[in-house]
Amino acid sequence: MENQKKKILCVGLVCLDIINVVEKYPEEDTDSRCLSQRWQRGGNASNSCTVLSSLGASCSFMGSLSAGPVADFIVADFTHRAIDVSAVIWQVKGQTPCACCVVCPSTGSRTVVLSDMNLPDVTAADFSKVELDQFKWIHWEGRNAEEQVKMIERVAKYNSTLPQHQRITVSVEIEKTREPLYQLFPLGDVVFVSKDVARHFGFESAEAAVRGFYSRVKAGAVLICAWAEKGADALGPDDVIIHSDSFPPETLVDTLGAGDTFNAAVIYTLSNGGSLQDALTFGCRVAGRKCGFHGYDSIREHFEDELKPLN
Amino acid sequence: MENQKKKILCVGLVCLDIINVVEKYPEEDTDSRCLSQRWQRGGNASNSCTVLSSLGASCSFMGSLSAGPVADFIVADFTHRAIDVSAVIWQVKGQTPCACCVVCPSTGSRTVVLSDMNLPDVTAADFSKVELDQFKWIHWEGRNAEEQVKMIERVAKYNSTLPQHQRITVSVEIEKTREPLYQLFPLGDVVFVSKDVARHFGFESAEAAVRGFYSRVKAGAVLICAWAEKGADALGPDDVIIHSDSFPPETLVDTLGAGDTFNAAVIYTLSNGGSLQDALTFGCRVAGRKCGFHGYDSIREHFEDELKPLN
Repeated sequence: MENQKKKILCVGLVCLDIINVVEKYPEEDTDSRCLSQRWQRGGNASNSCTVLSSLGASCSFMGSLSAGPVADFIVADFTHRAIDVSAVIWQVKGQTPCACCVVCPSTGSRTVVLSDMNLPDVTAADFSKVELDQFKWIHWEGRNAEEQVKMIERVAKYNSTLPQHQRITVSVEIEKTREPLYQLFPLGDVVFVSKDVARHFGFESAEAAVRGFYSRVKAGAVLICAWAEKGADALGPDDVIIHSDSFPPETLVDTLGAGDTFNAAVIYTLSNGGSLQDALTFGCRVAGRKCGFHGYDSIREHFEDELKPLN
Repeated sequence: MENQKKKILCVGLVCLDIINVVEKYPEEDTDSRCLSQRWQRGGNASNSCTVLSSLGASCSFMGSLSAGPVADFIVADFTHRAIDVSAVIWQVKGQTPCACCVVCPSTGSRTVVLSDMNLPDVTAADFSKVELDQFKWIHWEGRNAEEQVKMIERVAKYNSTLPQHQRITVSVEIEKTREPLYQLFPLGDVVFVSKDVARHFGFESAEAAVRGFYSRVKAGAVLICAWAEKGADALGPDDVIIHSDSFPPETLVDTLGAGDTFNAAVIYTLSNGGSLQDALTFGCRVAGRKCGFHGYDSIREHFEDELKPLN
């Protein structure tokens, strides 16, 4: 298959987000009513799939689910958005995680209580069954890093047998400040590091972060760090800092998943041969727009003119 | 049909309760994990059905649902507990309500954020289609009182055509401090009034409440008020106050639904011909036990010896 027609695979978490929009964050031991409640498929890799699919990219999700009403909701939503779920691992123990989120537009706060229902993560053994030749890009949300290292090694081995233009690009996201995740730095062709991790290491800007972390990535890799309203910076092998400002919406409505949206728009651009500057700017534009509405439904309509036609 | 073999119908709310058990109530704008999360069918009338069914009574639930994953979960749970749902009204607008509850055992707090998804309540027109001759007892959780008054009038009319021993007993619960609900006082053969409503009227004990409210109920009716750890009091037409102490569990685990449990155990006893004293004591015992474990699963095993055999 021609590489351009292949799919993008995102490996990571999917959960149910129950989003309660409230006038005021509830005080402990009270009963209140929310202004509205919506159920949304969540999880970083899962959200990035939503945005990739909205932008017109063919994509697949790989992660764990446990049969039940939460999984039913999630699978129905994946299907509705034309995201392939054939790589989902159906676990027999644990439950699909569910996050209760309280969003307060007046203060801009979002408070999340996530359940950890002992659902096993996808393993390297699970990943060994994935047919790699369907994919042009595989993105890992850093989670069970030891296993993810083995998965990426499998891709590296596969790539080594192929000419450059048929290889799979590997991207990784290091979002949480957890030591084992840092072993993913040298494994991505594209590495997303979060503001949280950057600040944990004492960096006070995206530029400082990409400069400071660059020694950790492999030769030729691109390192990207988004910094909310300050935009995003990237550094590649040519040692030139690339920057994009943010594109805040007129009214801030919903910042949940803005980071996942940024990652997806960057991957979309790079996987279609765009430049790093194009990718960064598009990432900031799509993420900014996304913050102006609830969920992801309106992404395509806002960027219709500049996207490749949907097939 | 012999009246004893007929069913008990509970009319009121059903919702999904998502119960997050946390170490500490989450601060605004943070991410945290809960110790555990469980999904539970909630709503007063719905909980009372659960307990009635656990005690071995045949029962039916009548309330509104809207098709979707929440309703799927709820119906599966009703079915699992052998509660008849043929009287459920499937609404085409609105959504089934869902409450996110944060329970913190260290402080004993329970914080509830309920969604109001514009799901219409059951109307008198809906109720007119219910075949009354299947029921020996109908219990209303006070909600849309104007319509509920009409439903109860239908039962009164039906009863007036029958000899005493074939009549349907009517009970009502007045739990919330909302003016329209108070018109239900004169309509029940058995009236449950909450501590909340009692205190709203300035009564500082269950005895004061049943004495103070008794002029509002109809001739021959029984008025019952439970007062948490103080037990419960009742007053009937013979003007004698009946009291039961509470039966607190060794360790307080879960007080959610304790009031609904009390109501169900009282209805269970009275509908099987027990005395008011028996009903009150059994109500307090079952409700107390229920506070010693999560949910309702262990009720039957604790009272096995004194219940009628399940068929």
